[in-house]
Amino acid sequence: MLTRWTFLVLGFVLLTTGLGGCSTGPGAPSRPNVVILFADDMGYGDLSSYGHPTIETPNIDRLANQGIRFTSFVTGSWCVPSRTQLLTGRYMPRVDFGGRTGANGNGGLPESELTLAEALSSAGYATGMAGKWHLGHAEDRFLPPNQGFDSWLGLPYSNDYRKPWVQTDVPLGLYRGTEMIEHPLKQDSLTVRYTAEATRYIDAHSGGEQPFFFYLAYNMPHLPIHTTEEFRGQSDAGLYGDVVETIDWSVGQVLAALEEQGVADNTIVFFASDNGPWLNLPDRMLQAGNKPWHAGSPGSLRKYKHTGYEGGARVPAMIRWPGQIEAGVDTDELVASPDIYRTLLNAAGADAPDLPLDGHDLMPFLRGETDASPRERYYYFLGDLEAMREGRWKLRLADDTTQLFDLRTDPAERFNRADERPDLVEEMRTQMTAFADSVGAQLPDE
Amino acid sequence: MLTRWTFLVLGFVLLTTGLGGCSTGPGAPSRPNVVILFADDMGYGDLSSYGHPTIETPNIDRLANQGIRFTSFVTGSWCVPSRTQLLTGRYMPRVDFGGRTGANGNGGLPESELTLAEALSSAGYATGMAGKWHLGHAEDRFLPPNQGFDSWLGLPYSNDYRKPWVQTDVPLGLYRGTEMIEHPLKQDSLTVRYTAEATRYIDAHSGGEQPFFFYLAYNMPHLPIHTTEEFRGQSDAGLYGDVVETIDWSVGQVLAALEEQGVADNTIVFFASDNGPWLNLPDRMLQAGNKPWHAGSPGSLRKYKHTGYEGGARVPAMIRWPGQIEAGVDTDELVASPDIYRTLLNAAGADAPDLPLDGHDLMPFLRGETDASPRERYYYFLGDLEAMREGRWKLRLADDTTQLFDLRTDPAERFNRADERPDLVEEMRTQMTAFADSVGAQLPDE
Repeated sequence: MLTRWTFLVLGFVLLTTGLGGCSTGPGAPSRPNVVILFADDMGYGDLSSYGHPTIETPNIDRLANQGIRFTSFVTGSWCVPSRTQLLTGRYMPRVDFGGRTGANGNGGLPESELTLAEALSSAGYATGMAGKWHLGHAEDRFLPPNQGFDSWLGLPYSNDYRKPWVQTDVPLGLYRGTEMIEHPLKQDSLTVRYTAEATRYIDAHSGGEQPFFFYLAYNMPHLPIHTTEEFRGQSDAGLYGDVVETIDWSVGQVLAALEEQGVADNTIVFFASDNGPWLNLPDRMLQAGNKPWHAGSPGSLRKYKHTGYEGGARVPAMIRWPGQIEAGVDTDELVASPDIYRTLLNAAGADAPDLPLDGHDLMPFLRGETDASPRERYYYFLGDLEAMREGRWKLRLADDTTQLFDLRTDPAERFNRADERPDLVEEMRTQMTAFADSVGAQLPDE
Repeated sequence: MLTRWTFLVLGFVLLTTGLGGCSTGPGAPSRPNVVILFADDMGYGDLSSYGHPTIETPNIDRLANQGIRFTSFVTGSWCVPSRTQLLTGRYMPRVDFGGRTGANGNGGLPESELTLAEALSSAGYATGMAGKWHLGHAEDRFLPPNQGFDSWLGLPYSNDYRKPWVQTDVPLGLYRGTEMIEHPLKQDSLTVRYTAEATRYIDAHSGGEQPFFFYLAYNMPHLPIHTTEEFRGQSDAGLYGDVVETIDWSVGQVLAALEEQGVADNTIVFFASDNGPWLNLPDRMLQAGNKPWHAGSPGSLRKYKHTGYEGGARVPAMIRWPGQIEAGVDTDELVASPDIYRTLLNAAGADAPDLPLDGHDLMPFLRGETDASPRERYYYFLGDLEAMREGRWKLRLADDTTQLFDLRTDPAERFNRADERPDLVEEMRTQMTAFADSVGAQLPDE
């Protein structure tokens, strides 16, 4: 349920007029700007507002306080599915990548998908991106400039896709458009340079007739972690903390740019991580300065990235749209990244593709017009469909086990209740099987 | 280090005059009232401000926002040592209880100890208490009315000290003074009745010449968890969440009473839990309605109650004194419950006992006059001296292991660094041995 942070008393007022140009419906300004801030491998417990004892993230926390902070926001449990869900509104198995998207991979997001950028572009938006893509690069048609983004400065994939961590001879380099412009890559200043790209974009595209969409997909705090001299030693949590605090600074810069340009009230800002912390990093990563503690915290949640537990899929996430979305509110209602795609398309008045979508329009819920999230179920794909959440219950079937968790009384997934509720297990397994069939996937035990 | 929550901008002003009566030093109002709110077995991760995904604690969070929120506050890892440290300013091994303090125990806090209540009483304070004692009850001299409290409504020990959980024929009953006034005990309304006792006390003792000290020591959320019909089903986290939210309501009632009586600005309010969550509950507890998930969350910390890991000893804690202590501040500097004893004695102008004390006066640190906590080390006693923290490092020696953790980069105690730093292990072990000797304790491997 939505619960107002009573102590904040931020004075939420549902503005009904005067924020945008023409209206698409009662009370809704049309064509808000959209900014997505997307961290890489940041854990559920890595922000001060999500309980980290040491890392300080005042800017991200302020963003949360000015909008809705989600405590049950789920997405793909690793990079590619998570980005697929965010940018296409569809679960990974629906999308035929035709191969992998790492350094040596030749697959990519097919043209049949309508990315968020393509949809918003078609609706008249200027669209820019800085940061990590990871949805294909072997052919130019897979890269952001051919997937709806007017501009892109960033990496085609994860920042560890070079020797000694990944055995590839493909150079890890920075792209501007479809050209590699820097190699070897200077990782220390990546976050700072992405931030400058974002604020320049906001400055350049504010105040005109055309609304804008900017997607800032940090490569950090994915290993190997890097930041500039300025930020080193600034946190009390070592280099990992410094890197997260650099991202916090970056979010502050973006919010300041929106303020300075006078567009903060007409801009939807969404912040999230792509998946849980990489605590299960493989041994190959522990070279060239990487340490096992260069990964984040799942907070009180179980496990980490690339698992079907909450520590893998549940991430810090928040959304702000002053005057339209409630402010100073926490919600533990179930929401998921495909919902962001659909919600943003609707808010922008953009057309949805003629494809099966897996998201819901959250706006009536975010506006406080309904108490419950429109999402009833979430499916946790790790190749196979490993788990499903339905309301308070989660069924997980991997590793030759049948685990039923009550996430209301047991968000840490400590207590397997499967033996108590065979009826529910069977019902949920049936639902999982049907859904897996419908997207061409299968369950782990099939 | 102290880090201001920049987003709160609560306008901290160091008032230097006019809050109290006569001054004991420059800028310090003398004889502030003191309220201690002490939860039982509440975990580090059980409050919304400490990252719980579902439990909502707006009143406790507001208290934290109006003062200093500690993220490295440590205390004893189970009830009796924790209460001993808080009320005597001394580590458990220094105090000769002469036996246990449970239902069948005949030990108690000796008269040679000067409790916080005795010290404040001697300094002219009115002293009241509601809630759990647990420092002895077999003789009247051990009970709160003979340990410095003018009044007491509460339980002599934990609320599970009856059959079927504990095999005793001693009745579990509610005391008023040294008389048992209710048996069988109605546990559902315990928190509500303690709260009424606290607010009546505040109402009765505000506005007079005599300052007051009130100690509200909840029996909850220690198992078996109970609350009134009014609170059942109010949280999204099941009965455990309801019980924590009842305590949050209670804190709100106490803060409101201080406001209404006009004494909030001249009252130091300290809130903490006594130890980590009881996730390691023994099988005997799983009877008569208790469920394994009727326990809290350590958040991102390792383990739970009655262990030498942070999940056992590090608790949610905060302190508020408007105008005197900084507001809107988080600190991960090391502080501990014996410091609260010494700090409150000094703030009240009360005499300290002629006994070795284990605490520091935190006030210069809490006022922002110094950046660093005065505490260099903390000793984790579980009978033996199991662990020690010194700055960022923690050495733990139990279970035939030698574990060295860097709590700055690894607050979850995942990575044992002992092999890397044999010098530090040896130095810290020597320090531990010397301190254990000085208090008549020993290390686990001796």
